Amino acid sequence: MKRLAILGSTGSIGTQALDVVRALPGHFQVLALSGGRNLDLLQRQVQEFRPLLAYTPVDAAAADLRAAGARVVPPEEMAAHPEVDLVVMAIAGSPSLHPTLAAARAGKPVALASKEALVMAGAVVTREAREHGAQLLPVDSEHSAVWQCLQGEKGGGEVSRVFLTASGGAFRDHTPEQLRRVTPEEALRHPTWRMGKKVTIDSATLMNKGLEVIEAHWLFGLSFDKIEVVMHRESIVHSLVEFVDGSLKAQLGMPDMRLPIQYALTHPLRLANLNLPRLDIAQLGRLTFGQVDMGRYPCLRLALEAAQTGGTCPAVLNAADEVAVERFLAGEIAFLDIPRFVEGALVRHNPVANPDLETILEADAWARSVVREEMRC
Amino acid sequence: MKRLAILGSTGSIGTQALDVVRALPGHFQVLALSGGRNLDLLQRQVQEFRPLLAYTPVDAAAADLRAAGARVVPPEEMAAHPEVDLVVMAIAGSPSLHPTLAAARAGKPVALASKEALVMAGAVVTREAREHGAQLLPVDSEHSAVWQCLQGEKGGGEVSRVFLTASGGAFRDHTPEQLRRVTPEEALRHPTWRMGKKVTIDSATLMNKGLEVIEAHWLFGLSFDKIEVVMHRESIVHSLVEFVDGSLKAQLGMPDMRLPIQYALTHPLRLANLNLPRLDIAQLGRLTFGQVDMGRYPCLRLALEAAQTGGTCPAVLNAADEVAVERFLAGEIAFLDIPRFVEGALVRHNPVANPDLETILEADAWARSVVREEMRC
Repeated sequence: MKRLAILGSTGSIGTQALDVVRALPGHFQVLALSGGRNLDLLQRQVQEFRPLLAYTPVDAAAADLRAAGARVVPPEEMAAHPEVDLVVMAIAGSPSLHPTLAAARAGKPVALASKEALVMAGAVVTREAREHGAQLLPVDSEHSAVWQCLQGEKGGGEVSRVFLTASGGAFRDHTPEQLRRVTPEEALRHPTWRMGKKVTIDSATLMNKGLEVIEAHWLFGLSFDKIEVVMHRESIVHSLVEFVDGSLKAQLGMPDMRLPIQYALTHPLRLANLNLPRLDIAQLGRLTFGQVDMGRYPCLRLALEAAQTGGTCPAVLNAADEVAVERFLAGEIAFLDIPRFVEGALVRHNPVANPDLETILEADAWARSVVREEMRC
Repeated sequence: MKRLAILGSTGSIGTQALDVVRALPGHFQVLALSGGRNLDLLQRQVQEFRPLLAYTPVDAAAADLRAAGARVVPPEEMAAHPEVDLVVMAIAGSPSLHPTLAAARAGKPVALASKEALVMAGAVVTREAREHGAQLLPVDSEHSAVWQCLQGEKGGGEVSRVFLTASGGAFRDHTPEQLRRVTPEEALRHPTWRMGKKVTIDSATLMNKGLEVIEAHWLFGLSFDKIEVVMHRESIVHSLVEFVDGSLKAQLGMPDMRLPIQYALTHPLRLANLNLPRLDIAQLGRLTFGQVDMGRYPCLRLALEAAQTGGTCPAVLNAADEVAVERFLAGEIAFLDIPRFVEGALVRHNPVANPDLETILEADAWARSVVREEMRC
């Protein structure tokens, strides 16, 4: 019986993690639930799972959680609670950083769905995790694929390359002219995956793939020249690992986030879950692979450049993208403005090498204010 | 420094195993070489590798091996020699059975390229290997793929299915009318693999895939309902494993037998070998998958039926196929006669359940004489 703290329980990953818990009775106890602003859903989750701890950022709703029997504590405290065996980190965006650090410092294994903690502060987070013996378990489908392919292999020295697959997102077949006019609603229609809003927009720009490259760098200790992005429209092969002997392993499955979520929860075991969709190989027809057209995806280029420069650049990239995507979703800027604002922030930034946490948070705040200011002009 | 006995050193697998040894200097010592009737090649190999032991079935050639410094001993003795660390079993066909058993009884790890030992006497061979602590390491590309995908996984209980991929062989696009007239030369033109003659003909009939199903059953302890065959024309995905949680792993690589041979030789390590071809994922274009048309491949159906019945049936299947393929290669029977003669032997056979080695060898001899007799009619 693993005791879970699910942080971000009302979001896309959080609700699917609870689906996995429901499908595997007797294996998990939900000890803590931290939700966002969807209070109705959080309240229903607390009623169903009766966690010891609960949290909502909406002060007025805390009383309801207490009335349902939960002690109300902030996510950082949940992540470090002595009875928690595994932290599911599913808080969207940069707010995931502090609870992830709290879990790492408490030596808790973290099933990490939020890539932002590693993008912003990968060196700090992985150092804290290493020092306190906290394992970082990938939840992103690509990183779960790499992780699964690395099981039983001797490790980094035998890996020659990792190929992260990219579907190309909602607009992979759009002309530049069409791209100029796309709406948030269109951008949210991902061809293969059901995900949260921010990551779906990031998939359309391929910023998401760039953030994943940075995440893979920190999770697997791979230099950036060993991480490649390859187009794979069907989202069936979730990523591939090439070894030094020329052999490759790939992980495949239907595009359903519950699969990698469950793997992170049950690892090192695999458990049968009849609710999960099965891939029918003989019915697959074909799988396609190709190069990414970098000219089509300026956000990917920006992310790879920020990754190479390192220091505070990935934090600036991430912060600028969060603001830009938020404004795009609000209908305030155009789709093609997203890379423009991100690039604007990066160009104006003076990178700091080997930054500490404070410096990273300053760079994050600086980038947000710069992008907001430029938007006002 | 692993000390190798390479049995069948002058065949397709044997010569490629020596290519791997050459490419990885300092990792292997060739302690024993057993060749076939290609005496020139064997003599050159002995001159190059200076093994302690050598063997040829041609008595008159033994003196040359001795003159080159080798002691001449039969394959069974090589396989059990105290200084041998790993036996590479690359003898074609049923003659591989006794040396494989000798290696198993001596507790030696066997890199098993010859599937016949497991097809004929899987229960006997795996029992001897288990009792004497001898590991059977697959060399066939499909089984190497499954083995690689199983690394670090908890084992049989977590595997829901194994998919062995089949290219469809030389005649995958032939009409029934065309199939009636094909020549041995045409049958030996495999679309993707360079292999020995027997296995190339077996690939054209898909008998090879049936034998591989039986081999997989014994190597991985999987019931036959968990082993499926799937068409995959490109021979890039060498096989796939589906786990109980719905996740699949696949192993990929260029169709080059040196890759799985090397993996069996270096396992649990992987070593860089710049002579081996690299797969370029982004240039792959597409990979196709589909169902096998069982009506097109009667040999596969016969093999799966023999596998299900078990006992002496797989040995009869194998023996009848060896005779039929030999006669087809000699131009004495037609391509479509191969399944006819194999089916004839199976229909006339009274299967014996749980046979001992003697009973298996009797069934083997019986099947050969039955097929030869029918051919004379």
